[in-house]
Amino acid sequence: MRLQLASWPEVQEYLTDSTGIMMPIGSTEQHGPTGLIGTDAITAEEISWRAGELVNALVGPTISVGMAHHHLEFPGTMTLRPTTLVALIRDYIESLASHGFRRFLFVNGHGGNLATVGAAFYEIYQEFRQAHGADAPALRCRVLNWWDGSKVRALSDDLFGSRLGNHATPSEVSVAAFAYPGYVKHAELDPPVAPTGRFYDARDYRRRFPDGRIGSDPSMATPAHGERLLVAAAADLAEAYRQFMNED
Amino acid sequence: MRLQLASWPEVQEYLTDSTGIMMPIGSTEQHGPTGLIGTDAITAEEISWRAGELVNALVGPTISVGMAHHHLEFPGTMTLRPTTLVALIRDYIESLASHGFRRFLFVNGHGGNLATVGAAFYEIYQEFRQAHGADAPALRCRVLNWWDGSKVRALSDDLFGSRLGNHATPSEVSVAAFAYPGYVKHAELDPPVAPTGRFYDARDYRRRFPDGRIGSDPSMATPAHGERLLVAAAADLAEAYRQFMNED
Amino acid sequence: MRLQLASWPEVQEYLTDSTGIMMPIGSTEQHGPTGLIGTDAITAEEISWRAGELVNALVGPTISVGMAHHHLEFPGTMTLRPTTLVALIRDYIESLASHGFRRFLFVNGHGGNLATVGAAFYEIYQEFRQAHGADAPALRCRVLNWWDGSKVRALSDDLFGSRLGNHATPSEVSVAAFAYPGYVKHAELDPPVAPTGRFYDARDYRRRFPDGRIGSDPSMATPAHGERLLVAAAADLAEAYRQFMNED
Amino acid sequence: MRLQLASWPEVQEYLTDSTGIMMPIGSTEQHGPTGLIGTDAITAEEISWRAGELVNALVGPTISVGMAHHHLEFPGTMTLRPTTLVALIRDYIESLASHGFRRFLFVNGHGGNLATVGAAFYEIYQEFRQAHGADAPALRCRVLNWWDGSKVRALSDDLFGSRLGNHATPSEVSVAAFAYPGYVKHAELDPPVAPTGRFYDARDYRRRFPDGRIGSDPSMATPAHGERLLVAAAADLAEAYRQFMNED
Amino acid sequence: MRLQLASWPEVQEYLTDSTGIMMPIGSTEQHGPTGLIGTDAITAEEISWRAGELVNALVGPTISVGMAHHHLEFPGTMTLRPTTLVALIRDYIESLASHGFRRFLFVNGHGGNLATVGAAFYEIYQEFRQAHGADAPALRCRVLNWWDGSKVRALSDDLFGSRLGNHATPSEVSVAAFAYPGYVKHAELDPPVAPTGRFYDARDYRRRFPDGRIGSDPSMATPAHGERLLVAAAADLAEAYRQFMNED
Amino acid sequence: MRLQLASWPEVQEYLTDSTGIMMPIGSTEQHGPTGLIGTDAITAEEISWRAGELVNALVGPTISVGMAHHHLEFPGTMTLRPTTLVALIRDYIESLASHGFRRFLFVNGHGGNLATVGAAFYEIYQEFRQAHGADAPALRCRVLNWWDGSKVRALSDDLFGSRLGNHATPSEVSVAAFAYPGYVKHAELDPPVAPTGRFYDARDYRRRFPDGRIGSDPSMATPAHGERLLVAAAADLAEAYRQFMNED
Repeated sequence: MRLQLASWPEVQEYLTDSTGIMMPIGSTEQHGPTGLIGTDAITAEEISWRAGELVNALVGPTISVGMAHHHLEFPGTMTLRPTTLVALIRDYIESLASHGFRRFLFVNGHGGNLATVGAAFYEIYQEFRQAHGADAPALRCRVLNWWDGSKVRALSDDLFGSRLGNHATPSEVSVAAFAYPGYVKHAELDPPVAPTGRFYDARDYRRRFPDGRIGSDPSMATPAHGERLLVAAAADLAEAYRQFMNED
Repeated sequence: MRLQLASWPEVQEYLTDSTGIMMPIGSTEQHGPTGLIGTDAITAEEISWRAGELVNALVGPTISVGMAHHHLEFPGTMTLRPTTLVALIRDYIESLASHGFRRFLFVNGHGGNLATVGAAFYEIYQEFRQAHGADAPALRCRVLNWWDGSKVRALSDDLFGSRLGNHATPSEVSVAAFAYPGYVKHAELDPPVAPTGRFYDARDYRRRFPDGRIGSDPSMATPAHGERLLVAAAADLAEAYRQFMNED
Repeated sequence: MRLQLASWPEVQEYLTDSTGIMMPIGSTEQHGPTGLIGTDAITAEEISWRAGELVNALVGPTISVGMAHHHLEFPGTMTLRPTTLVALIRDYIESLASHGFRRFLFVNGHGGNLATVGAAFYEIYQEFRQAHGADAPALRCRVLNWWDGSKVRALSDDLFGSRLGNHATPSEVSVAAFAYPGYVKHAELDPPVAPTGRFYDARDYRRRFPDGRIGSDPSMATPAHGERLLVAAAADLAEAYRQFMNED
Repeated sequence: MRLQLASWPEVQEYLTDSTGIMMPIGSTEQHGPTGLIGTDAITAEEISWRAGELVNALVGPTISVGMAHHHLEFPGTMTLRPTTLVALIRDYIESLASHGFRRFLFVNGHGGNLATVGAAFYEIYQEFRQAHGADAPALRCRVLNWWDGSKVRALSDDLFGSRLGNHATPSEVSVAAFAYPGYVKHAELDPPVAPTGRFYDARDYRRRFPDGRIGSDPSMATPAHGERLLVAAAADLAEAYRQFMNED
Repeated sequence: MRLQLASWPEVQEYLTDSTGIMMPIGSTEQHGPTGLIGTDAITAEEISWRAGELVNALVGPTISVGMAHHHLEFPGTMTLRPTTLVALIRDYIESLASHGFRRFLFVNGHGGNLATVGAAFYEIYQEFRQAHGADAPALRCRVLNWWDGSKVRALSDDLFGSRLGNHATPSEVSVAAFAYPGYVKHAELDPPVAPTGRFYDARDYRRRFPDGRIGSDPSMATPAHGERLLVAAAADLAEAYRQFMNED
Repeated sequence: MRLQLASWPEVQEYLTDSTGIMMPIGSTEQHGPTGLIGTDAITAEEISWRAGELVNALVGPTISVGMAHHHLEFPGTMTLRPTTLVALIRDYIESLASHGFRRFLFVNGHGGNLATVGAAFYEIYQEFRQAHGADAPALRCRVLNWWDGSKVRALSDDLFGSRLGNHATPSEVSVAAFAYPGYVKHAELDPPVAPTGRFYDARDYRRRFPDGRIGSDPSMATPAHGERLLVAAAADLAEAYRQFMNED
């Protein structure tokens, strides 16, 4: 169930059974000539919603804008500063913890978010410890990339092999295409498989990856692949959530 | 066009014609026994998307969590601290201004956001002035409540009269019901029209408004009303956007 | 009684009877060719002091610098950033709440402050809730513009009609002139009634309102008018304070 | 001239001659059984206003609330957090520097402010350097305690000798009494001369100095002494300001 | 050369040849019954100093306290909040960049630092971009764990095999023992190899890992092993630094 | 005992006897043509370590980078912003206080740190008071300059007389030379004794003191003097620590 589509009595009822919640987090950033700017938010939330149904988990509102500084040389990219995202995640968890939520599984659609989300968890633990000492609630926060589960990884390797790449991948573009089939874009990709490598700031990124892709060939993306990937990723996530909730 | 559903070359193209963008901002908070927790975000984004099509305006990602401290005694409510929302809006505008966007129309779904959004605009103007002096880009930021347009206000008065109220109104509940007809909830409302009055912090709010509503009778809400309200509000918003873009 | 003119045993005594306090907040900003830069602080504090005597309320130290970014193109204007004002108000209330004060009526002399003061109240409620949970003191914070009371509004309409305007009004200039009769300035006002309209940042403001006034004719201001307005506003404020203290 | 009592064209005119300004900073804190809570703000502003006239210097709005955490066990005391005061002073100087002010002489009424004011100057220099590099304006900020000038120190020694003490001194109480003769308080002081010594936090302070005084006998204070002290301190300050403005 | 042991003319000379610098970052946290609390800072700095000599690189001052919230249930552990560490790293780089340094290789002694250091780099890139736009210097920041190089990893596997573990490892304990042979501690370790597993906040950590170790057997540590590990890690680091400096 | 060289059981044992700790704080800043950039950190830590042995006090990790904005025109200087140092000191004390430490003696190697360290203490007291009210632990924080003790001051006067000066003094250069005899530098100093005077920002500092020294003749520095000064300063500090721990 999506939190946004519940009423408060329904949430009250849910909390009598479970203190867990999934929190999708994406990004609003360029995804190459054909990928949607919202790809990372769309994939994270679609997979979370599907997995949420499999395990009867509540799914919180999607964090749509994440850490995308390095894409800012491409129009449409938006980013938070890390300190803003830390504050936002702290506020989200503070709110939900006040109702009794205790286990927070962040479902991540953008690798660039990982560092800052991890920093946010430290900030939260420390704030609760300082504010409440021995009485602080025992919060548990984790973050998972949706593409890291075993099922979706196997399928993605199978479908795209070495043309998967690292950014604007046919995998994520497929999932977004399945979610929004009316918005599939076409463009000639030159070279067909984008270059790879390390990068630093936004100008450095654009210099190295002129059309925005890293190592990928998103021309392989299709809505049909997207559906299969979504199903696989949701199954992986459902399993991870169950383990997370059952952990000692 | 939704920014999330565009590619970066499409945004680049858009910017050759316009520097304007609509930014939906809502809240994640209780809306009485039957209203969706995401009502304010859903209404703001649905109306913005519709209006965006009427005037060919880009619509940014929805800010789903706003200023809802006073609803925190009801499970499921989430809030940012004002300083977090100020930072978030600053980061959003900073990102978009770096691409050339100059006119930002925030479409608001929650009255409680107004003060902090207004404060954020001041913070942004001052930061740009301090950082860039005479070279600062001439940003223009405005915020509008979607229910304040003349067409939607007339319709709302006509449909609900004095049973509209101030929170969990049949108007907003109708728009959300139209958007998500599968999630319409039913509950006995007692009293049928909720009490009204001023309130202070979250405990004070719950004491005065035990089921969360203020002055409203959301049992009057229907998806059909919602569609009409959505059309009216989008027309109002489209007109306001045109004026905003044409202002000297 | 002004807090600044009390001793600590007097405050201790006061707290045995009342937990209320008035907090004047103004601004330090241009007020047209003839208005004092301190007009908004002076009016807020003079009216608070007078009203404080009528209802035996303590009056805190005036916040002299507020939200005046949009006036910065005029020499002498000072502004806080919104986040600074939020922190300042939080610190003021935190200090006073530690002594037992619970009801804070901010008496505002500058419309531009309203948004940020409102944001500050949210921040405070949330900080106290997070720090103290169910044990948080039940704070009540309100803000009133001194010119919004019924008596002073009627008098102002009567004296100035449509030439009152929105900034550097003959009403506020009169009150300041009554308070500081030795500092009344004279200048030719061209046009006699200033233009009106919406504005955005500081440069936009100066472009639209070249001498700083909005819609007003402050040549109508006199110390005698100021005294009558001060008396009316103080009576309105005294009544509002009584209601605030008696609220359930 | 007090900035608050000037119009913007007057400030514009002033800036053609001078880039200097005096900034009074005080505190709102207990001053023993008889001293005014606003003593430090009152003394700083009265002396600044007098000195301002001697040297034709503009005097900014008084910072009334400073660093008074250690007095918080006494009702009526208010304090900012150091980080708030740093932000406030940064905003003040940022505003004034944008008009062309360059030399800022803070006139201090409370020893406890010195550390944080000094920290604020560092923050400002660093922010301007980071924002503007080689183009940063050459700001000069200093802070002086009004009781440290040679004339006022000699007079104070002469009048009060070893009964001057460190807090709630007859010197500062006299200056405030001269400024507000209607608010002179009387109370038996026991012991007549308060104890002295180091202290740490607020509870420690109250334990060591039960009536709030440190080392002082404020029963020696009179308005007449206050006038002489005010004149002496203003002369010292005028001389310091001249030197500050003439420094290479 | 250590920056701390250079004079400013020596740094000026260095900058004519290179814009690179190594920055050791560690932690101050429990390392089991026998490990030094400063292990992570000591290892990072000793390896950096050695590597700095191999490649004539300047080595900045060690960041001794890092992200160690999860160890706070063990006496002596210290931690920064993530937002503090982000600010600290920003200030360090801001300072050094003002002199002309451009490539910053952080040599990390504590895995828990990685997320926050990564977040800090994003914050820095974004701040420079916002402050300086197209004129921002092209900064490059990387972070490496000293134990991740191929030579040191091979040696560590060879020496300790599966008893290496994750915290209070015989590898890090050996390096610290080589650096401070007078401070080698002895204690019975029970069980000899500590348990492993995931953890959340500080209380959860102590519950799972009662003596502080994770998966390790530090009884295998010796100063002699430490010397070999130090030499290997420094060689790895020297190579990584050379590549970093030669990157396009 | 240095905290960094202790194990957590050793700290646990220490806390059964004492709640005191010494905290060295220095700076990373130019010290004239011959002084080490790390002089202030080196002197503070060497003296603290020696004194710690005299009184069996634990010595925390050195804060190596302090408030050195005014030296930034000299290559190699690093500085924190005051707000960063306040946060860092708060985090240090928060961590240590959670283990039971109560008395914190900061041993300072750089006069420029004093203001901000003092501000930090206020921030800490206020945060603990706000978070914990009457249950806040009774923290005591003090800061001492190592050169202010009577023994070291007498010796320094005796050795260097009026050529001691204020920055890059032969006293601090001697102590650092004793600690790191392999890094003694030589350069012609012109003039032999540097000029003195007040300064404002970094550019102003460099203009007035072109080689970085203020009023000093560091050519008088020797390692042998350094040893004597170190011994004297450590004896002074040991005595100050004893008094601090025995204070009522």
